[in-house]
Amino acid sequence: MKAFESRAACRAAVIGVGLIGGSLAARLRRSRPSWTIVGYDISPEAGERALRMGLVQEITPDRAAALAGADVVILAPPVSAILEILSTLEREIAGEAFVIDVGSTKRLVVEAMDRLPERIQCVGGHPMTGPATAGVSEPDAGLFEGRRFVVSRTRTTRVATLTGAVGLASDLGAEVVEMDAAEHDAAVALVSHLPYLVPLPLLAAFREANETTRSLAAGGFKSRVAGAGANVPMWWDILRTNRAAIRAALGGYRDQLDRIDALLANGSEEELRELLTGAAREAAEITGA
Amino acid sequence: MKAFESRAACRAAVIGVGLIGGSLAARLRRSRPSWTIVGYDISPEAGERALRMGLVQEITPDRAAALAGADVVILAPPVSAILEILSTLEREIAGEAFVIDVGSTKRLVVEAMDRLPERIQCVGGHPMTGPATAGVSEPDAGLFEGRRFVVSRTRTTRVATLTGAVGLASDLGAEVVEMDAAEHDAAVALVSHLPYLVPLPLLAAFREANETTRSLAAGGFKSRVAGAGANVPMWWDILRTNRAAIRAALGGYRDQLDRIDALLANGSEEELRELLTGAAREAAEITGA
Repeated sequence: MKAFESRAACRAAVIGVGLIGGSLAARLRRSRPSWTIVGYDISPEAGERALRMGLVQEITPDRAAALAGADVVILAPPVSAILEILSTLEREIAGEAFVIDVGSTKRLVVEAMDRLPERIQCVGGHPMTGPATAGVSEPDAGLFEGRRFVVSRTRTTRVATLTGAVGLASDLGAEVVEMDAAEHDAAVALVSHLPYLVPLPLLAAFREANETTRSLAAGGFKSRVAGAGANVPMWWDILRTNRAAIRAALGGYRDQLDRIDALLANGSEEELRELLTGAAREAAEITGA
Repeated sequence: MKAFESRAACRAAVIGVGLIGGSLAARLRRSRPSWTIVGYDISPEAGERALRMGLVQEITPDRAAALAGADVVILAPPVSAILEILSTLEREIAGEAFVIDVGSTKRLVVEAMDRLPERIQCVGGHPMTGPATAGVSEPDAGLFEGRRFVVSRTRTTRVATLTGAVGLASDLGAEVVEMDAAEHDAAVALVSHLPYLVPLPLLAAFREANETTRSLAAGGFKSRVAGAGANVPMWWDILRTNRAAIRAALGGYRDQLDRIDALLANGSEEELRELLTGAAREAAEITGA
């Protein structure tokens, strides 16, 4: 059985050659020259572009064929499609294979991987390209450079498989972090999904305000709601597949909001000032300002 | 009694010649050439700068003298200092005068104005320069161009005084909106103060997260907390002088947050998608994207 870290001839199927999958394929072509990268995409245009840009050596319109012949499978469509593919993978792959995904949430993905037989060695993956992808529309071999790449083992992941996945992510230029899938989902709920959601209630409150109030909204308001509802397909998948962890993060946020409300109700002027100076200090630390 | 709109010789005292007061003085020197603008600032350096930049014709270290000799008084220090000055204005101004302030909140200011005798004709004012001031450190005569300038009448404001205040604000290049002080404070609580506060609970939740979680925070998180705790002296004044209206806005925000939480708990996938597409539509409308 060939390993993720194999430098020998190896056939890798990249399912989904959009921004993430295409960038990943482009980087692997460079760092794993002995590999043959076969791409598949539900969009024929995306597939043709990947071939034209040289991100993959081959492109196929037949997903089953791509999977059946692969030593390594990289699942790079949206999370809901990853879950759907994993549910049929046992039938589509007859022998042994390594599988890694690059979806934004990990618990449901790893649970689906847990249901596969051990011959299909799986690792959950999440390259945290974050807003790097916001301004980028073309696949780019440097997309993962210096970014975190979380890997999550499944029930049956062997040590060699995990090591191979770490090697693959390192070859992308990423900094690898191993985390339990549920721990990952709780962490990204706090640092990524919650920040995406906090502008939404501002919009809803604004919608219900009168015209005079709305007319006073200036740059401060606009900067806080900019980007709300961006990339609906990706974020819809995230909300659908991480409801519980996001609700826990929202609960923590609301507790802190209640603390501010209590300060406004009963806090001393000194406590109000400490609220602001503390926030200024922490924001500067985090943003490196 | 001279009027705000006077084009005749008139002595105007600008109390506080920092960014807002200095910009206002600079603009009045141009649009009211018959006026003599006398500046005062608690900081001698700010006063000297205003004189050196030609924002004012005179600068005085004696606030009482500046007030005593003025036909028009423009109060441009932070809100807490405006309230302090208003509390002693009856003693400092012996005869008749027009007074306008430029503080960020209006209810407490107008209440303090209400306590003055009718001979001191007052109007509350709020030039909403917003984030225009964020990148500007030097007084600028164009600071108010195209911005909203809210004026709020007091218990004893005469029609001619209000008209004069509107003329003054118009001369700054601003778009004047007349609003009741409490209505103003509720409106800015929603469109300005609430957006300033929503990143703070993100920082607090982040502070309590473990090191691994914190290490995953990327640009998405950073962009949402950037600017938190900016300009502590101004915002401290805003929180102190607008507690009730900010709490009401926070309450509305929390209700909307609870609605999102309920959708995550029990909503259909279609409802989750509608949440995101609705937000995207509204954000685009507001930001003009």
